Amino acid sequence: MSNIVSEKMYALGSKRSEIRELFEYGKKRIAEVGAENVYDFSLGNPSVPAPDCVKNTLAKLVSETDPVALHGYTSAQGDAGVRQACADYVKNTHGCDCSADDFYMTCGAAASLTITLNALSKEGDEVIVLAPFFPEYTVFITQAGMKCVQVKCSEEDFQIDFAALEAAINEHTKAIIINSPNNPSGAVFSEDTIKKLAEMLEGAQKKYNRSIFIIADEPYRELVYDADIKVPFIPNYYNNTIVCYSFSKSLSLPGERIGYILVPPKACDNRDIYFAVCGAGRALGYVCAPSLFQKIVPECIGKTADISIYKKNRDLLCNALSEYGYKVVRPDGAFYLFVKALEEDSRAFCEKAKAHDLLIVASDSFGFPGYARISYCVSTEMIERALPAFKALAEEYNK
Amino acid sequence: MSNIVSEKMYALGSKRSEIRELFEYGKKRIAEVGAENVYDFSLGNPSVPAPDCVKNTLAKLVSETDPVALHGYTSAQGDAGVRQACADYVKNTHGCDCSADDFYMTCGAAASLTITLNALSKEGDEVIVLAPFFPEYTVFITQAGMKCVQVKCSEEDFQIDFAALEAAINEHTKAIIINSPNNPSGAVFSEDTIKKLAEMLEGAQKKYNRSIFIIADEPYRELVYDADIKVPFIPNYYNNTIVCYSFSKSLSLPGERIGYILVPPKACDNRDIYFAVCGAGRALGYVCAPSLFQKIVPECIGKTADISIYKKNRDLLCNALSEYGYKVVRPDGAFYLFVKALEEDSRAFCEKAKAHDLLIVASDSFGFPGYARISYCVSTEMIERALPAFKALAEEYNK
Repeated sequence: MSNIVSEKMYALGSKRSEIRELFEYGKKRIAEVGAENVYDFSLGNPSVPAPDCVKNTLAKLVSETDPVALHGYTSAQGDAGVRQACADYVKNTHGCDCSADDFYMTCGAAASLTITLNALSKEGDEVIVLAPFFPEYTVFITQAGMKCVQVKCSEEDFQIDFAALEAAINEHTKAIIINSPNNPSGAVFSEDTIKKLAEMLEGAQKKYNRSIFIIADEPYRELVYDADIKVPFIPNYYNNTIVCYSFSKSLSLPGERIGYILVPPKACDNRDIYFAVCGAGRALGYVCAPSLFQKIVPECIGKTADISIYKKNRDLLCNALSEYGYKVVRPDGAFYLFVKALEEDSRAFCEKAKAHDLLIVASDSFGFPGYARISYCVSTEMIERALPAFKALAEEYNK
Repeated sequence: MSNIVSEKMYALGSKRSEIRELFEYGKKRIAEVGAENVYDFSLGNPSVPAPDCVKNTLAKLVSETDPVALHGYTSAQGDAGVRQACADYVKNTHGCDCSADDFYMTCGAAASLTITLNALSKEGDEVIVLAPFFPEYTVFITQAGMKCVQVKCSEEDFQIDFAALEAAINEHTKAIIINSPNNPSGAVFSEDTIKKLAEMLEGAQKKYNRSIFIIADEPYRELVYDADIKVPFIPNYYNNTIVCYSFSKSLSLPGERIGYILVPPKACDNRDIYFAVCGAGRALGYVCAPSLFQKIVPECIGKTADISIYKKNRDLLCNALSEYGYKVVRPDGAFYLFVKALEEDSRAFCEKAKAHDLLIVASDSFGFPGYARISYCVSTEMIERALPAFKALAEEYNK
């Protein structure tokens, strides 16, 4: 590396995330052996088209709205009508008291997180993440100047290990990121779990005489597959919650970068936090969230892509892999299967999978070695084609 | 302020930029006295609709493209075909040798700048800005961990004051931001100026034995109004140039956040810089530039909104204001008029203008006190309505 550029940025840019690396490998491999012979389970790129309301609203806006208004700057925090629609939806759906002025529209979940973390960051602060976790959390937390503290979830069901969590909380703890439904485990934290978490954090706030926030990273909120599974709305259980939402997965719009931050009125110093969010958005160069995609929100909020396909994929994969001898915890939500590697070294396991052109992500970068993430936001047909490869891989270990 | 949030972010978010502040005031004032009685020249929000190719391409993409591909993640650096279209255009238009792999698509000019600055930043580095300058430069530079050094342009014509620039360059200088056509002065740096600048920087690189970059911030490149005005393409004159481009103004899409960074092959260590750009984009939470708006680029690059309206506005305003006794340097490009305040204190001057419901921005935050910025990307009709107010304001000072 030259001595001209930032070492940190060079390191982040020259070494792609393992997920992206595998995805790029898949594209090359497809060129070599054909798409029908590669089973790419690497990326969390929704495979189900956006719901019709997206196409219809886009077409209507483009044909009927004055382009100067349609494509012009919105306020930095987002169009007022769009924020009102978000507030109405959250109020009606979750019974959470909030107004348009509590919402800040963002360029998707990653922006929601970087902006929130930069807004909260003070010297010495620590942020707890629950492993397994989305690997970019560590990048976002350290870039915001805070320390990332990892706490492992219970291996049986990927729920919170409260003893481990309690041991990690200290006088520097500023926040804990909760990602439920979870990437990569698919686990959904139950109401009981959230109540227990809230109680523990209330105690910690008193003990350390400081505010501790839950940052609820919720791009998968709508992606749950069984009627009895509810995703608790965390601000209803714990006041100091900041919600980081994205429409990427619910509306199948990951490339369009649209989401929001909600700082509910019950969060302490909520106006100060909101202003700091505005400041962080400004400092990071986010002028406003993309205007056209902001404007589809009032028509599309609460709708989802056809997620029955993900449910079908989940069941197909879970059943087949269990049958082949893989250890699988059936995921309640998101579109990932977190399967135990068939040897201790998950990277070695995923390399062996690669030899079958099965592209699955080693779990090490999720802070939870020994597993692999299988994204099932793919075509059912590809899963069907891939099953013999999964079987052959298992057989390699059973010889 | 509470002691919970980042002081820096709170300060940035609670105190809006003066421009945004004035714009919000304008919206309130319109509600009070009616749009026909407020003359809002505060914002650089294009008033001319996007060219037809934008609407047509959007409609075609939305109706004909598979939504999964259309709205899916692109590679972090941008869709390969889109980057190829940018490379072809730059090669054909400016004769600059470059390829798709030298382009990184961004969420607009602010993102181009924050990402580039974070990519280059090393401890102790300084970045020179030429006053008058876009106020957010100081935010972006300090947020990236560098020192912002201001050098004033010549007051006669807003061209570079080379003696002042030479005095500011030292062993810490990492880059200089060149914004031509300029916001807020409208000045375009001539080929002679760019040649002289290149020569001076070549000398400085030798003298201090380090690489010094020009960061060419070029959202206004296409907005020039006279046939004899050319905007030199800086990489053709100085190798260590990084181009930060945005389609916001040329295509009248400021809210959609689409632009690019070009690290030309002739820039030293260009691969290292490119990787650091990828890393900075990742660290700041930019997953990819908005997918749909990336995909209009191949059809729309090189086209512009109907800029003859801006020319008409410029001429109307320049002629009238000169007649009323204002000191005006006729701008060659962008859509701003930088007019000398009629008293020493430009903020006091702009407050007096506000009493006439003339919303113009005091120049202090542009690093060049004593002036006001008048954005003429407004309707010609509003300018006509505003002229009596400009006249009355001038007469207040001539009593």
